[in-house]
Amino acid sequence: MTDASARILQSLREGVPLVQCIINAVVINYTANALLAAGAAPVMADVPGEAAELAPNASALLINLGTPDDEQRRAMREAASAAHDAQTPWVLDPVGVGALTLRTDFARELLRLRPDVIRGNASEIRALAGEGSGGRGVDATDGVEAARSAVERLVAETGAVVAVSGPVDLIVGPTGEARVTGGDALLTRVTGGGCSLGAIVAAAVAVSDPFAGAVAAHELYAAASERAAQGDVGPGTFAVRFLDALDAVTTAELASR
Amino acid sequence: MTDASARILQSLREGVPLVQCIINAVVINYTANALLAAGAAPVMADVPGEAAELAPNASALLINLGTPDDEQRRAMREAASAAHDAQTPWVLDPVGVGALTLRTDFARELLRLRPDVIRGNASEIRALAGEGSGGRGVDATDGVEAARSAVERLVAETGAVVAVSGPVDLIVGPTGEARVTGGDALLTRVTGGGCSLGAIVAAAVAVSDPFAGAVAAHELYAAASERAAQGDVGPGTFAVRFLDALDAVTTAELASR
Amino acid sequence: MTDASARILQSLREGVPLVQCIINAVVINYTANALLAAGAAPVMADVPGEAAELAPNASALLINLGTPDDEQRRAMREAASAAHDAQTPWVLDPVGVGALTLRTDFARELLRLRPDVIRGNASEIRALAGEGSGGRGVDATDGVEAARSAVERLVAETGAVVAVSGPVDLIVGPTGEARVTGGDALLTRVTGGGCSLGAIVAAAVAVSDPFAGAVAAHELYAAASERAAQGDVGPGTFAVRFLDALDAVTTAELASR
Repeated sequence: MTDASARILQSLREGVPLVQCIINAVVINYTANALLAAGAAPVMADVPGEAAELAPNASALLINLGTPDDEQRRAMREAASAAHDAQTPWVLDPVGVGALTLRTDFARELLRLRPDVIRGNASEIRALAGEGSGGRGVDATDGVEAARSAVERLVAETGAVVAVSGPVDLIVGPTGEARVTGGDALLTRVTGGGCSLGAIVAAAVAVSDPFAGAVAAHELYAAASERAAQGDVGPGTFAVRFLDALDAVTTAELASR
Repeated sequence: MTDASARILQSLREGVPLVQCIINAVVINYTANALLAAGAAPVMADVPGEAAELAPNASALLINLGTPDDEQRRAMREAASAAHDAQTPWVLDPVGVGALTLRTDFARELLRLRPDVIRGNASEIRALAGEGSGGRGVDATDGVEAARSAVERLVAETGAVVAVSGPVDLIVGPTGEARVTGGDALLTRVTGGGCSLGAIVAAAVAVSDPFAGAVAAHELYAAASERAAQGDVGPGTFAVRFLDALDAVTTAELASR
Repeated sequence: MTDASARILQSLREGVPLVQCIINAVVINYTANALLAAGAAPVMADVPGEAAELAPNASALLINLGTPDDEQRRAMREAASAAHDAQTPWVLDPVGVGALTLRTDFARELLRLRPDVIRGNASEIRALAGEGSGGRGVDATDGVEAARSAVERLVAETGAVVAVSGPVDLIVGPTGEARVTGGDALLTRVTGGGCSLGAIVAAAVAVSDPFAGAVAAHELYAAASERAAQGDVGPGTFAVRFLDALDAVTTAELASR
């Protein structure tokens, strides 16, 4: 698995895939920097009328529901539809689904446009599948295993790969599953830790199949967060070093995990 | 006073209050990171239709007028109203009030929904009370004492605690007042230095009464900025270390100020 | 040239010009911090109804087309028009023009309001002049010299100074031209590297004529990026140090380039 991930990281860095993101204002800067650090070319095109024009030319698309105002929802609909028609792979990050009704309904609507990967925490994945309470906003209040039946239902219903983030990540596709261990809890002290992971998943899926790409992205994330957490670091310094680490992690380092 | 502040910091870190922010795009990321570093759980829910759903479940609400576009103003109205009805404490940060007519009128409208704390610089507080010119945008061109009559008028009219930021901060409530000294001028070289303070006030008010909470937040801010400014630091490094310091300041450190 | 640039940097730091920015959500925070670090006072006022009120009182205006949603386009139109009428100098950064139709048409519309400086990469400048394909989003896929005929056409048609960013920057005005060398490629690994340059150009143009101001801004940028890249730095650390460097570059350092 990690050999495959190392090859995907190399393809990402050589191919510099164009990753279109429609993402919340909180993390839009950090996500673009994470994509640049990992080797991708981010384009944060989220204006209605532009989002659909770009999606067929993008290598992958990320739709993140963090702050889905009316205009962004229109851009998301048109971009996901254009990606679906053009076979641009796309990733859905259902941020805060379950805690807030509007975005929960909207996320379910987007499922019809067949995301290739769905990435969230256990609360969000459960709520997207129609289970559970959704936690309190963007918190992960459920463990990964608590989401297993929801994951299986989503995989069966949509054909997507579903990735659940937690201390151990669970990634399930139509033909297999994987767990990714490691990483550092300081990621939970930086806003956008999960959101940027969704973007790295999109970048990896641009250069591989959805299951292997999702696994590679989670492994790169774990390796980079361990690097960034070395020494005595606070959350501000960690966030900066994490970008350095996304750039610095070697394919050999990934292969040896 | 500082013993009380130390206890509030401890309550904040133990309670991890959910702080809803409707805040400008410039500082939305830094503010979320400041809340995480201080120990709170930020949710930047600012979409109309969602903002009111979250406010009754939030531990506190911050409304910051930095970039109040039409959709955000609708979200602010509904969230402040829902917070008022549900007795969720809320903080108003009247960024740029006085310099720009639209937000000045809007801020006065919001006063009817009874914020628990109003936090701004002297120019903004004077303009909100109907005095003065409002400075040039978000600059603080007036000293804190120049705002005293405006502060007293706002406290009398609204029952809110009013906090004015400056080299010495002035915090006035219906039954008392305090001054907070210290801090470092590098905070004025980082965009969102004041905005994040408003968010920390909201986090503290979530676990205490408005007056003691406002004082504790200003003392935490002063302590953290002094820590972050140690050594020879430029404004970029200071901003990163300030997040580290919000996490690292101890309750003993606060009690001994 | 560099003596002139040193004097402009000194004027900027002494005058603290108020720079209004209407800019994309991705880089709005970093741009405000870059302006603060360089010595200017940023105001990111982009709300329709406020944008036109501020522009006549600003020392300079930047319009950046990174994420031009409907409300921002209205704010851009009114601010550019108010700046034009009040003779506030203004800078156009045609981010992504050529790659996306909506903003390409919109950028051409804004040209009628006579920006004092147009700053972009070669792909964007060519597309704005009606040549070439526009690259893939915000990438610079053309070399600076490939944009020469486009630059000359834009200068002749609009009277603006046109600055093209690349490994060597080309700056052309109605009465002269300059090249700026140096800088560091790490700037291309930080989102908003080019966008913040547009803001620094606006700050410099606030205290000088457009041609000398554009040159000074590019020289400050080159000097600061070389400082920030010293040692073994990753892209996250570089972005932080670049803000430190914008503050630390001395006028003597600029004069000796």
